Amino acid sequence: MRIREIHLTPVAFRDPPLLNASGIHEPWALRTIVEVVTDDGLSGLGETYGDRSHLERLRAAAPALIGVEVHAHHAQYAAVAATVGGDVFVDQHGLTGAGSNQKTVDAVFSPFEVACLDIRGKAAGLRVADLLGGPVREAVPYSAYLFYKWAGHPGEDEDRFGAALDPEGIAAQARLFVEEYGFGSIKLKGGVLPPDEEIEAVHALREAFPDLPLRIDPNAAWTPETSIRVGRALEGVLEYLEDPAPEIEGMARVAPEVPMKLATNMCVVTHAHLPPALARGAIGVLLTDHHYWGGLLRSTQVAALCETFGLELSMHSNTHLGISLAAMTHLAAAVPNLNHACDTHTPWQQGQDVVVPGALRFVEGAVPLPQAPGLGVELDRDALGALHENYLRCGVERRDDTAYMRRFDPTFQPKRAHW
Amino acid sequence: MRIREIHLTPVAFRDPPLLNASGIHEPWALRTIVEVVTDDGLSGLGETYGDRSHLERLRAAAPALIGVEVHAHHAQYAAVAATVGGDVFVDQHGLTGAGSNQKTVDAVFSPFEVACLDIRGKAAGLRVADLLGGPVREAVPYSAYLFYKWAGHPGEDEDRFGAALDPEGIAAQARLFVEEYGFGSIKLKGGVLPPDEEIEAVHALREAFPDLPLRIDPNAAWTPETSIRVGRALEGVLEYLEDPAPEIEGMARVAPEVPMKLATNMCVVTHAHLPPALARGAIGVLLTDHHYWGGLLRSTQVAALCETFGLELSMHSNTHLGISLAAMTHLAAAVPNLNHACDTHTPWQQGQDVVVPGALRFVEGAVPLPQAPGLGVELDRDALGALHENYLRCGVERRDDTAYMRRFDPTFQPKRAHW
Ligand SMILES: [Mg+2]
Ligand SMILES: [Mg+2]
Repeated sequence: MRIREIHLTPVAFRDPPLLNASGIHEPWALRTIVEVVTDDGLSGLGETYGDRSHLERLRAAAPALIGVEVHAHHAQYAAVAATVGGDVFVDQHGLTGAGSNQKTVDAVFSPFEVACLDIRGKAAGLRVADLLGGPVREAVPYSAYLFYKWAGHPGEDEDRFGAALDPEGIAAQARLFVEEYGFGSIKLKGGVLPPDEEIEAVHALREAFPDLPLRIDPNAAWTPETSIRVGRALEGVLEYLEDPAPEIEGMARVAPEVPMKLATNMCVVTHAHLPPALARGAIGVLLTDHHYWGGLLRSTQVAALCETFGLELSMHSNTHLGISLAAMTHLAAAVPNLNHACDTHTPWQQGQDVVVPGALRFVEGAVPLPQAPGLGVELDRDALGALHENYLRCGVERRDDTAYMRRFDPTFQPKRAHW
Repeated sequence: MRIREIHLTPVAFRDPPLLNASGIHEPWALRTIVEVVTDDGLSGLGETYGDRSHLERLRAAAPALIGVEVHAHHAQYAAVAATVGGDVFVDQHGLTGAGSNQKTVDAVFSPFEVACLDIRGKAAGLRVADLLGGPVREAVPYSAYLFYKWAGHPGEDEDRFGAALDPEGIAAQARLFVEEYGFGSIKLKGGVLPPDEEIEAVHALREAFPDLPLRIDPNAAWTPETSIRVGRALEGVLEYLEDPAPEIEGMARVAPEVPMKLATNMCVVTHAHLPPALARGAIGVLLTDHHYWGGLLRSTQVAALCETFGLELSMHSNTHLGISLAAMTHLAAAVPNLNHACDTHTPWQQGQDVVVPGALRFVEGAVPLPQAPGLGVELDRDALGALHENYLRCGVERRDDTAYMRRFDPTFQPKRAHW
């Protein structure tokens, strides 16, 4: 069963004005939808970043996969790697750590691998989770992913979520998310306001939800000294503290001084980071992300490594659509040591998607594993067409939270070890 | 597709008097043949140790797997682990490192997993290597595995290999193996004679085969000091030096002092050993063995970990039959970073087997990947019956190289850091 065609479709969809250490989400978020078709007519789906440079790398890699067997994981990886060459992925988002050739190869390979697993599942009548060792949980818990935000994009009406710029706003957002989705844990994207205000927001969440695990992620906006101060101030309150300070070096300084584990999706984002981070004791929780850890199978291998080294696992999320949510759910279902609720941006998309509704839903904060073969989701070609039209018209070609913020605050600087 | 039946058949077959640091191989070697049958009548094969204590653990584990889905790797592992409890595998062979609960679970689980992969391959029309990421090589190179040996078992005729108790005998054995199998690399099992005599044997091999990679494995019979002396004496001659001294501690003392990498299948034999061995820089090459690393999938995960940490990979062998050779070949074919020839005892079995002849053969020292679905080997029920009869009649219930040696040399002591 060999790959005959690959279709890459960039799409754009509306995104609320969510604040982070790099700036603010633009009105349009981008993704690339990948369809792989085999010589016997089976097709599979993948989803990845939509930035122009990434799209170009996907377009360069796709021809190298034509004719390759869908089960030939290693051959596919080698074929993709050969097209990436010495190129380096530039992390223009500023939120997922440094780029490298390895990380670039892994990011380009990932959606093709997911699509091939979708095909393999369909061919064998098995769910993708079955191909990854079988589900150890039939529903995957996600966390409520809270953001400081403006009421609406400048010049537009207020969105349904409204403003959240203080502890009360954050607590109100949490109540909305927990009420609508049943989330059983809460993550606050920090690095936006001075640390003491964010500490207050976490305390407001603790008061509103005495029993839910809480996390805060300032995307390395704090110095190690501030990270230690915040960590100590939130003793007994946080499930884990995510990327308080930059780099393995900074995290290693903070880790022994705070009462909770440090988590990361910034200082350990590719294989080369694991040995030094482990040697330094820089982290206690790794947030995996199959989008840049080379797909689902390679993510299970990283998970096994974490088990060996006593690292806990959680899962990172960028703004995404349903194909990614399905892939994340299959992966999380099949990783025994993924014992923290996964992150997802899904609620912020308000139903915009490229998959036929119904296969993915939240029940008490968890997504039940889709039961149809493969990923268990189906492309809605009308929706795909409409979101591709958005892409062609929206004028955004790469995510740049900083530039968008500077349209409203020309002096804005991304916050890295800022406080 | 669920597991309906499991059949465990202990077998015995003739083994030559091969010498090692623990003593000498007995006239009969033991294995257990595992057959797993699904509710729709597909069957798969596995092979593992035949020692009584291991057989009893297999018998305790098998009922826990009845009714479990063949793709449910994690569920199968958990089911097996629950039957092992706090039990500890005793390494009565003295040649594969310390026992632990984890290693015991992994060893008990392994043949069931291999059999389920055999079934999954047959169900999908795919080779086991395809299920492990696809082959990166279509034939797997093995090394000529040389042993010091007696001419024959005491009281029996000389076997066809004859005696090998000096450099000339070892070189002659190497010539026979290379001529008959085409091996492209050579391993000498050491720890039998004083180190200077074994150094001489390695030099004799180098002289006879100027271009072939050479290894020696004394099974930790040397002190760190002796290991350093031997390693320096063999500079430029060895591909790697395997388990010269005992434990991570001993290996870590030797590693920085010798010019070649140290390999092990003794000081790192389960996941808990990896972090300290890596932290200490004790080894440069890991000899994997799916029989005690928890089967094929878990072995690929260990291989991925080795890639991340810059450890090279080779493969360990105990005395085995064709089901294991098939499994080893599928695994090695699907691990990109397994860049050393694998060990195998196959030539010493002189064709004794439980699989139908033909699927496995050596071509220029390598075993071409069997092409039929699953493992690609088929059980020969007459041969299985005959080898099971051997088991019932031979009187050996567990391998004990030391006790057998003491029948001829009552003062014999296993050699651990002896020289
Ligand atoms: Mg993060
Ligand atoms: Mg060895």
